[in-house]
Amino acid sequence: MPQLRKDPITSRWVIISTERGKRPLDFPAAPPPPQLGFCPFCPGNEDKTPPEIMAYRKNGNLSDRGWSLRVVPNKFPALQIEGDLDRTGEGIYDRMHGLGAHEVIIESPNHNDVLSAMSEERVEDILWAYRDRILDLKKDDRFQYILIFKNYGEQAGASLAHPHSQLIATPIVPKRAREEVDGAKAYFDYKERCIFCDMIRQELQSELRVIARNDEFVAIAPFASRFPFETWILPKTHEPFFHDAQKHDMVSCARILKEVLGKMDQVLVSPPYNYLIHSLPLQETEMDHYHWHIEIMPTLVKVAGFEWGTGFYINPVLPEDAAKYLREARL
Amino acid sequence: MPQLRKDPITSRWVIISTERGKRPLDFPAAPPPPQLGFCPFCPGNEDKTPPEIMAYRKNGNLSDRGWSLRVVPNKFPALQIEGDLDRTGEGIYDRMHGLGAHEVIIESPNHNDVLSAMSEERVEDILWAYRDRILDLKKDDRFQYILIFKNYGEQAGASLAHPHSQLIATPIVPKRAREEVDGAKAYFDYKERCIFCDMIRQELQSELRVIARNDEFVAIAPFASRFPFETWILPKTHEPFFHDAQKHDMVSCARILKEVLGKMDQVLVSPPYNYLIHSLPLQETEMDHYHWHIEIMPTLVKVAGFEWGTGFYINPVLPEDAAKYLREARL
Repeated sequence: MPQLRKDPITSRWVIISTERGKRPLDFPAAPPPPQLGFCPFCPGNEDKTPPEIMAYRKNGNLSDRGWSLRVVPNKFPALQIEGDLDRTGEGIYDRMHGLGAHEVIIESPNHNDVLSAMSEERVEDILWAYRDRILDLKKDDRFQYILIFKNYGEQAGASLAHPHSQLIATPIVPKRAREEVDGAKAYFDYKERCIFCDMIRQELQSELRVIARNDEFVAIAPFASRFPFETWILPKTHEPFFHDAQKHDMVSCARILKEVLGKMDQVLVSPPYNYLIHSLPLQETEMDHYHWHIEIMPTLVKVAGFEWGTGFYINPVLPEDAAKYLREARL
Repeated sequence: MPQLRKDPITSRWVIISTERGKRPLDFPAAPPPPQLGFCPFCPGNEDKTPPEIMAYRKNGNLSDRGWSLRVVPNKFPALQIEGDLDRTGEGIYDRMHGLGAHEVIIESPNHNDVLSAMSEERVEDILWAYRDRILDLKKDDRFQYILIFKNYGEQAGASLAHPHSQLIATPIVPKRAREEVDGAKAYFDYKERCIFCDMIRQELQSELRVIARNDEFVAIAPFASRFPFETWILPKTHEPFFHDAQKHDMVSCARILKEVLGKMDQVLVSPPYNYLIHSLPLQETEMDHYHWHIEIMPTLVKVAGFEWGTGFYINPVLPEDAAKYLREARL
């Protein structure tokens, strides 16, 4: 019998339907990344991107090429940094300027690097770069929200193969982010406890959906996973903002992120995926109800009319089974 | 400069970013449908589907094969018709049985038929079949919502090429459907007018985003289109339920649906698409605020991490431009 499961934070119901009995290798393999002759993110092509916003370079190395990580504006930005919002109406409609920031974090000078195979120190550097950019952009009070995300693989929406993540800063809090924060707030108002903290406590106790853990973080298959092998990484102690993470948090976060992506690569044969960092909207002042986390979604199934129309996902893999496969993968 | 536009019904903001200057033929062509040796929906294979729920057959033709349209249960149903909800908890989580109906409407006996090239009468028959199934299923008071949808083309999630649509009846009102109804209700509470009626009035007056129209229906590119060439078909007069459409409505609806899909086929070279019929939840008693409609979304861009994480879509085509291309296409 299929099950309906409710995400306790957003109240989104998900259909867990294992009728087709999908196992990890039943999902189609990802096509190999397209080989382009020219890559604008490779060393030597620094002048082919818009001017660099920041970079990590070895001590004293001032040359263009000696970088280990670079951040540049997106060449085709979805939002633009200049100007103001200029809200206007058109009859019953509302619009404003597409103000914001859209940046690319080039994670490595090596075109063929993959995050799961980088050293922990290099993954940590990527997390520091995310944090550096957030700390810089949050000074601009036109921005209400910053989303860090990574599209890996063409099926997951990556248009370039060179390892990179993206950042978008928006002048409004996006609807889904608002929903999540509001859902957590409703729980807090009722229970006076953080729902994420409660969830972590229950997951660590039952262990059914735990994929990996270390001193500071836990990775779980969420109870109401929308997608097969969806995985969330959460700090074990309450922290609303990603950018307030301390040094030891970053070390542990890099370790578990690399570990989880490595497990996915093993069990699902290097699937395309998206990950997103969910953090409290920048200008929120209440801190007790929200808990930052990373959501990782391998791109294994096509989302079609039903999901678009209803927000009601059909997941063919039981989250407990997904967790077991990933937990038992030995790296 | 990119624009942010707000959908007045759901309050969803969309980024209209035409930086990359996409024109219709810039989108990758749909791959040809996979040719399977065996099709369970073709005449002669009636015993390969679960038992028929209903069919349209020519007068007096009682043979299995003489059907023009057939409805069968989905062989791998996301939801199942037997049992009750049996809501239970698991610590902080909630679940219930995956109760519901999941049916397939086989639109034609001809494997290679496409909806845009069928006669208006045959498209009308498909709409009647949708209505017949809704009227039957709505007698079952375990169901709160019925969604009719079509995935056309592999990229849009269709796993079989034979022309078909699907129906899912659910024991709860899906979140996105609820949001839309609540958004329309909020407008009604403030204005004492239906927001869809107001939108139709404004669109017919400005004509900027009108794609097609006839006596009973209008097709528009919505102001805050999430996807390039997204198109909504709405009855011009207020009607909350699709299944309350009259004979002359069905005739006009079939005509405009065929017309719009034909225009898309011409401008976008037979793109994959999803369409969905949005109708008031079955058990609602207030009727003044909601207006049924069809949403058609060609599958031209990949939805990636940003959209999943934020519900904040990036559309590379100005809705006014999309409407102009489609409006000017001559069939």
